[in-house]
Amino acid sequence: MSALYQQHLGTLDKAIDACAKRYSWTAYPESPSSKIWGAGPPVAGRENFEAMLGRDYPLEQPGEIGRTGAEVSPYTGQALGISYPRTDVDALYEAITVGIPAWRDTTAETRIGVCLEILDRCAGQLFENAHATMHTSGQSYIMAFAGSGANALDRGLEALAYAAKAMGDVPATAHWERQFGKAGAARLSKKYRIMPRGVGVVICCATFPLWNGYPAMCASLATGNPVVLKPHPAAILPVALLTTVARQVLVEQGFDPNLVSMVADTREEPATMALLEHPMTAIVDFTGSPGFGKWIERNCTDKLVYTETAGCNSVVIESCENLEQVAGAIAHSLCQASAQMCTSVQNIHVPAQGIAVGDGHATFEEVAQALVAAVDAQLQNPQVLCGTLVDEAILGTISQYRGLAAEHGRLLRDSGPLDYPDFPAARTASPLMLEVTEAARDIYRDEIFGPVSFVIKGRDAAACLADATTNARECGAITSHVYSLDEAFLDKAEVAYNEAGASVACNLVGMPINFAAAYSDYHVTGLNPAGNACLADLAFVASRFRIVQSKRM
Amino acid sequence: MSALYQQHLGTLDKAIDACAKRYSWTAYPESPSSKIWGAGPPVAGRENFEAMLGRDYPLEQPGEIGRTGAEVSPYTGQALGISYPRTDVDALYEAITVGIPAWRDTTAETRIGVCLEILDRCAGQLFENAHATMHTSGQSYIMAFAGSGANALDRGLEALAYAAKAMGDVPATAHWERQFGKAGAARLSKKYRIMPRGVGVVICCATFPLWNGYPAMCASLATGNPVVLKPHPAAILPVALLTTVARQVLVEQGFDPNLVSMVADTREEPATMALLEHPMTAIVDFTGSPGFGKWIERNCTDKLVYTETAGCNSVVIESCENLEQVAGAIAHSLCQASAQMCTSVQNIHVPAQGIAVGDGHATFEEVAQALVAAVDAQLQNPQVLCGTLVDEAILGTISQYRGLAAEHGRLLRDSGPLDYPDFPAARTASPLMLEVTEAARDIYRDEIFGPVSFVIKGRDAAACLADATTNARECGAITSHVYSLDEAFLDKAEVAYNEAGASVACNLVGMPINFAAAYSDYHVTGLNPAGNACLADLAFVASRFRIVQSKRM
Repeated sequence: MSALYQQHLGTLDKAIDACAKRYSWTAYPESPSSKIWGAGPPVAGRENFEAMLGRDYPLEQPGEIGRTGAEVSPYTGQALGISYPRTDVDALYEAITVGIPAWRDTTAETRIGVCLEILDRCAGQLFENAHATMHTSGQSYIMAFAGSGANALDRGLEALAYAAKAMGDVPATAHWERQFGKAGAARLSKKYRIMPRGVGVVICCATFPLWNGYPAMCASLATGNPVVLKPHPAAILPVALLTTVARQVLVEQGFDPNLVSMVADTREEPATMALLEHPMTAIVDFTGSPGFGKWIERNCTDKLVYTETAGCNSVVIESCENLEQVAGAIAHSLCQASAQMCTSVQNIHVPAQGIAVGDGHATFEEVAQALVAAVDAQLQNPQVLCGTLVDEAILGTISQYRGLAAEHGRLLRDSGPLDYPDFPAARTASPLMLEVTEAARDIYRDEIFGPVSFVIKGRDAAACLADATTNARECGAITSHVYSLDEAFLDKAEVAYNEAGASVACNLVGMPINFAAAYSDYHVTGLNPAGNACLADLAFVASRFRIVQSKRM
Repeated sequence: MSALYQQHLGTLDKAIDACAKRYSWTAYPESPSSKIWGAGPPVAGRENFEAMLGRDYPLEQPGEIGRTGAEVSPYTGQALGISYPRTDVDALYEAITVGIPAWRDTTAETRIGVCLEILDRCAGQLFENAHATMHTSGQSYIMAFAGSGANALDRGLEALAYAAKAMGDVPATAHWERQFGKAGAARLSKKYRIMPRGVGVVICCATFPLWNGYPAMCASLATGNPVVLKPHPAAILPVALLTTVARQVLVEQGFDPNLVSMVADTREEPATMALLEHPMTAIVDFTGSPGFGKWIERNCTDKLVYTETAGCNSVVIESCENLEQVAGAIAHSLCQASAQMCTSVQNIHVPAQGIAVGDGHATFEEVAQALVAAVDAQLQNPQVLCGTLVDEAILGTISQYRGLAAEHGRLLRDSGPLDYPDFPAARTASPLMLEVTEAARDIYRDEIFGPVSFVIKGRDAAACLADATTNARECGAITSHVYSLDEAFLDKAEVAYNEAGASVACNLVGMPINFAAAYSDYHVTGLNPAGNACLADLAFVASRFRIVQSKRM
């Protein structure tokens, strides 16, 4: 048994158990508090990050044909000034082939052990990763530590748990014996080998660079496939940090570092198509826009494709005990990470006649105003909750929808810049909220990236639910929420969302409702346009390898 | 627990155990001997088959718009005269939707129980199925009872075992609780639901109508998807027999019979494209020609596609202890089912300088002649081993290659009609064997359907192995064989075939080498052009369903 596998086996076993029973568990604490970590690591992490600025990132990979990278911090507006290898993809792939046989031919346990060690080492650079994520994806420090950090590491471990299960289902050998008529007994000894499919390309997104990075890398690498990480041009550094760790661990364990490589690029000179079109690429994991995700699903027909994109996530409010609490929960979603999360709420469906609140009633207008007030309340300390906008274009999106408000309904809450004392140049925007009716369906059925949301006046609660679930089915949804005191309505809503291929959460308050728990929440159903894959289930790993056998008489 | 599930649980558990350890086991005895079955069933099966001839097959399905079917027995040359519903696909699909909710919403165990019962009932009509298979696919009676009968049922049970494992990996409920900062503890109860993807279309082939029919139907149906069986126009009756049983069991268990339907057609008026293009079709299982299989893989991009097609299966003879025995084993493959099996050998690679045989030596010519003699020996009782030709076109194929012999090498053994006393009009052909060199690669790298084979003179054993494995990688292989007394050569051959994405058998004699054992041999690797799927592994089932969840605070 490999030493690393043995060392981390307790963690793996615990992850497998958590996946089976789906209770709350984490291998990687998500708080950056120095109460947990001590005073040193947070400071060291920041210093290490700052030492990387304005330099060539030290990544020695084959096929380097110059330097690339043009990251700009959404907090400072300044270029990070970090350069990465610009890569000749053919040359890199040629080099990658060298390390494949040893990686393929070692045991599944050895490969899993290496992946567990990579995750463990990445947990040791969560502070560096947090600063790198802040200044690329624009997340707040807290979110950068957790969402694309510790929580994403948990998703990586979760994927490994499924990879271990799927590969563990294949025995290494068997003895087989039977009678064939008069011909006598045939006795065969059989061997079964797990074989990789080819290079796994992992296309990471700008907002949560490692959310699919860790799990996709683990799923492909553990099953024997080399991995090429393709960061978004706006958020290369977090992916580079993972790449460095992975290559170090591989080398230490006697494997070729090129089994995990990175191809960075800029918006002006993109490298993605060269990876997608390479005949050695057999697996594509994609997180990003629905448009490109769909294009990959339809066009990369000779490759295994796993996508997670986005939808128009909805809330249906039928009734509640405490409107302020419900509005607060929803407002948190509208503000968190400036609604740039795949789990951010966009469409809030409220019946025209208002809703029951405890023993009383709230009109539609009162619900709408409660939501606005709750958003304002969330903005007391926006830097922690909202972070910044990953992309200048979001400001244009906000303008565009502000302009549509009057024609299609009314502006409930205008968006404006947020005040970040530490970062006066930060690119920020508070939530823009529009009130519309179902006549504006063409508008709110788009996935709108950034802090734009709709309070949608429906005929009644049933109509709200019908609209929301139709949109989930046809336009995609990653999270959906229902608030109701009526158990029958909740049952109906569960069925309606589930049958639309969407998961649903009921009456969540007092917690960040955007939160999806590794080992417990299957993330993305694969049944609606918001993605074809789930983080993580058996299907996420079972096809990444194949089985070849030999038998001898 | 459902009664059927409980009734058949012992069989399922045994299948799961056999898949895990991959020893020899069968749930369905493959011998039609009356010693096993008694005198009654064989006679009754024949009579039941004969009673179906010349009549409307009794299958009441929605969307019937006339009758179709033009099966002709390769044994008698006579039309079977059986008509089947000709189907308006849109109308059928509309009717199928009715039964989906109840089937989706029942337990996985109930669905598995229904599938187990279907297989059990089909085992009760193996004699009917054998005659139906004989007089459509042209198989011999023995082969029809086993290959597309009992052995195929085992593959169906195997697929169910994996479906049970994959669905069993998803818990029904969970309790989840954690602290979120000062906000207090969140306590959620969660439910997880297995959701089908949509209609599973199962395209069956002419030669082994139910080889993928049982497993594909079981894999899709058990995971909640309705199934539409699409038989080859030449071999509808075996598929109709399955359809009838499945519909009966569904109705008896209170489900809609249209959850398993059949769309029959003729060559002149094909119905396959209407099924492939229907938006409700979410899964396609295909067995048939490499050309159409590849087309489906490339063009049905919004569907899950599982293919098993064909390749140019090879033998490499490096040395052996007993040439007659080896030649006999290979000759059996060349003759069995007139080489119309996906596991039939086509290319026999022999070193130019001959091979070591025990302490002696056999020249290339001696090996070639031993193979010819062994084929002649196998043809003592051809009706049992060879059966008939499923398609008139195979006679044309034989003529074509006979014509190529002189130009590219020489005719080792000519093909001719076989003498079947019981069926004077049977469409038959004995093996055509050509001797060629690697100069004829363009010819023998095609998959040639029917009893055409090549003895290929290679420079030496290494060159033979290199050619055979290159062809497996580039042109596909479902089975590959090596004969050698040299352990080092066998090791090298195993690696070379495995790395070409092919499984390999070493030194098989004294058994039918075409045989692939359910629960033990993974059938088709999915790594070479002979198919993208494996019968059966976790990957064959894990993506056929998705998971949606709901959580309540």
